[in-house]
Amino acid sequence: MSPTTALSASSSLTTLFPFSSSTTKSKPTNFTQFPFRFSPKNPTLNLTSSTARSAVSIEKEVPETERPHTFLRESDDDDDEKEPSSTSSVRARFEKMIRDAQDSVCQGIEAVDGGGKFKEDVWSRPGGGGGISRVLQDGAVWEKAGVNVSVVYGVMPPEAYRAAKAAATDQKPGPIPFFAAGISSVLHPKNPFAPTLHFNYRYFETDAPKDVPGAPRQWWFGGGTDLTPAYIFEEDVKHFHSTQKKACDKFEPTFYPRFKKWCDDYFYIKHRDERRGLGGIFFDDLNDYDQEMLLSFATECANSVVPAYIPIIEKRKDTPFTEQNKAWQQLRRGRYVEFNLVYDRGTTFGLKTGGRIESILVSLPLTARWEYDHKPEEGSEEWKLLDACINPKEWI
Amino acid sequence: MSPTTALSASSSLTTLFPFSSSTTKSKPTNFTQFPFRFSPKNPTLNLTSSTARSAVSIEKEVPETERPHTFLRESDDDDDEKEPSSTSSVRARFEKMIRDAQDSVCQGIEAVDGGGKFKEDVWSRPGGGGGISRVLQDGAVWEKAGVNVSVVYGVMPPEAYRAAKAAATDQKPGPIPFFAAGISSVLHPKNPFAPTLHFNYRYFETDAPKDVPGAPRQWWFGGGTDLTPAYIFEEDVKHFHSTQKKACDKFEPTFYPRFKKWCDDYFYIKHRDERRGLGGIFFDDLNDYDQEMLLSFATECANSVVPAYIPIIEKRKDTPFTEQNKAWQQLRRGRYVEFNLVYDRGTTFGLKTGGRIESILVSLPLTARWEYDHKPEEGSEEWKLLDACINPKEWI
Repeated sequence: MSPTTALSASSSLTTLFPFSSSTTKSKPTNFTQFPFRFSPKNPTLNLTSSTARSAVSIEKEVPETERPHTFLRESDDDDDEKEPSSTSSVRARFEKMIRDAQDSVCQGIEAVDGGGKFKEDVWSRPGGGGGISRVLQDGAVWEKAGVNVSVVYGVMPPEAYRAAKAAATDQKPGPIPFFAAGISSVLHPKNPFAPTLHFNYRYFETDAPKDVPGAPRQWWFGGGTDLTPAYIFEEDVKHFHSTQKKACDKFEPTFYPRFKKWCDDYFYIKHRDERRGLGGIFFDDLNDYDQEMLLSFATECANSVVPAYIPIIEKRKDTPFTEQNKAWQQLRRGRYVEFNLVYDRGTTFGLKTGGRIESILVSLPLTARWEYDHKPEEGSEEWKLLDACINPKEWI
Repeated sequence: MSPTTALSASSSLTTLFPFSSSTTKSKPTNFTQFPFRFSPKNPTLNLTSSTARSAVSIEKEVPETERPHTFLRESDDDDDEKEPSSTSSVRARFEKMIRDAQDSVCQGIEAVDGGGKFKEDVWSRPGGGGGISRVLQDGAVWEKAGVNVSVVYGVMPPEAYRAAKAAATDQKPGPIPFFAAGISSVLHPKNPFAPTLHFNYRYFETDAPKDVPGAPRQWWFGGGTDLTPAYIFEEDVKHFHSTQKKACDKFEPTFYPRFKKWCDDYFYIKHRDERRGLGGIFFDDLNDYDQEMLLSFATECANSVVPAYIPIIEKRKDTPFTEQNKAWQQLRRGRYVEFNLVYDRGTTFGLKTGGRIESILVSLPLTARWEYDHKPEEGSEEWKLLDACINPKEWI
């Protein structure tokens, strides 16, 4: 099977896996659903259709009073030691990586904020999997910061699994079990000169279908980090993109240009013909490299969040600003809301399929604004930002 | 043909027709699209699928410097006088009704606001149709008030027209021309004790398909008026619902209870398991009564907007409030944004198919707020509002 035909976890996972899925209070069911799709390189089946979606199911979650050592099923937790070693499964090492990243990002945020502390919610699923949601709200520097990790065991419809077709028999394969783990975060500062950051890294595996001989087990990585300022400071954007490029270049020189463009394409607000922000990197379906290399790459990216972002915040958090500056930031926050509620696949499907609303919508800013027919004056600082969102630039 | 199988203009028209549709600057095309669906009583075909949608097209609009006497095509403008008479077509009289209603609502708003004035945008389509968008922003009383009318000539796919199937021949019918006209408005006041109002009234006609003998011409009415306060004043809600009931009762005693429930069902934020507000009336697909009676009913409803709403605003616009009151209003505005961007069919399809963004999104509040896991204290005024949104009440 060609790697490009692998089943792909869409950007929906950006929100969906890291943010817990549960059912609504009023209509309890045992399962919640989420969308899959094929690789954008081979978009032959849109599994966001209700037929396919209804076949994908995840157990309902339950709150936990404390963080477990691991969210993996016992059979996956292949290491007796507390710390996964280099011989542990990729699942185990990816879980450790995202939990470490959650700790270090939250520590970094709290240290700079000075005032706010993260509130933590832990949850698990009876059949395995679970997550940790952390939210800091109305801090000294950030108005809202969410950093969530999750591990999900689920079942996807065989139609989503092309390898089963490639190894075609007369037998129709049954549902395919999958594993997914991810970290997802949105950080909205108060100061209009301090940018919003979003990042998400995720790992996905399917089991080989038992009833289709020759159909392989699948895995892939996805994720990205992107910056959304209301005002452009070229040195900040350059620093941010350079840090992403540096992480990419350690592994593969084509990664940065390819993932930079992918990011510009993904965070596109179609009805505005503009991007949500100034991009960064974004990738999905990544399995056409060595698995260990990609695990190291995702780890490097997650570890680059603090050095890419925190120095910018330290520089801008106390910059004096006017009411006009704040109003413009609020208008851009409105765009953030539009992108997340209208386009982000994880958010829209999380909402429509009964996800844990407060976790999904922690990505929304504390406050946002919509003015009728607002057009920044040509040449103004606001216009420059808008121009860069309409015409993505090469920053380095 | 049973009236319940009539093609129905969905609530998408709430926003879509009254708010102009155009293409985005960067990707000019000649047509924009919008969704149809069958009657909710017979939901056999969801025409919001991309296949069906792509077959529905409306011409691109152009700005006008002044309001024309009518937006109807010459062939429809069957009266030589300036004012449509009782012998004029329903199309002509409905257009006059919505334009009169736009004038009287805008006058009512400006009179109470004292400070703000509506800004007007007029537009037309080369093949007939057009609209008038009026927005008052940052007034003394209202932070954002939009009142829009439009007239649309378009073509729908034959699959959307069940009557053609009912009168089945071997011949596949061609696209069906349709006419639609509507008024739509969202009024967001500043004071947290003054409620938001939304109303929309629309009329829809199709031509009989020429190539399917026996397939009839269709028409129907849709619309509604609903109230979205952040705090409950029972006397206000009772006054509002009573005014709706009075308008309904003039025509048919079953209207108010039926349309009140329809309203509660439509403005449902599924992922929150709560309604956007305290309802009012909502109806669609209405053609199983005398056409003249329904024209009078829609007129009565539109004329009831000012007496239903303005007295409430006059009573509440200067009520002193705290920061907490304002923050709660802002959280409820966040719910308004969630409903409109996630569920409102007119908004979502307008956005996805290249509608005039500023007209579509004038329904969004000037400002909104999202707090993580906000839960009003049981028994508080905020809790009472939320409870009434979760458990719709009978107000009269």
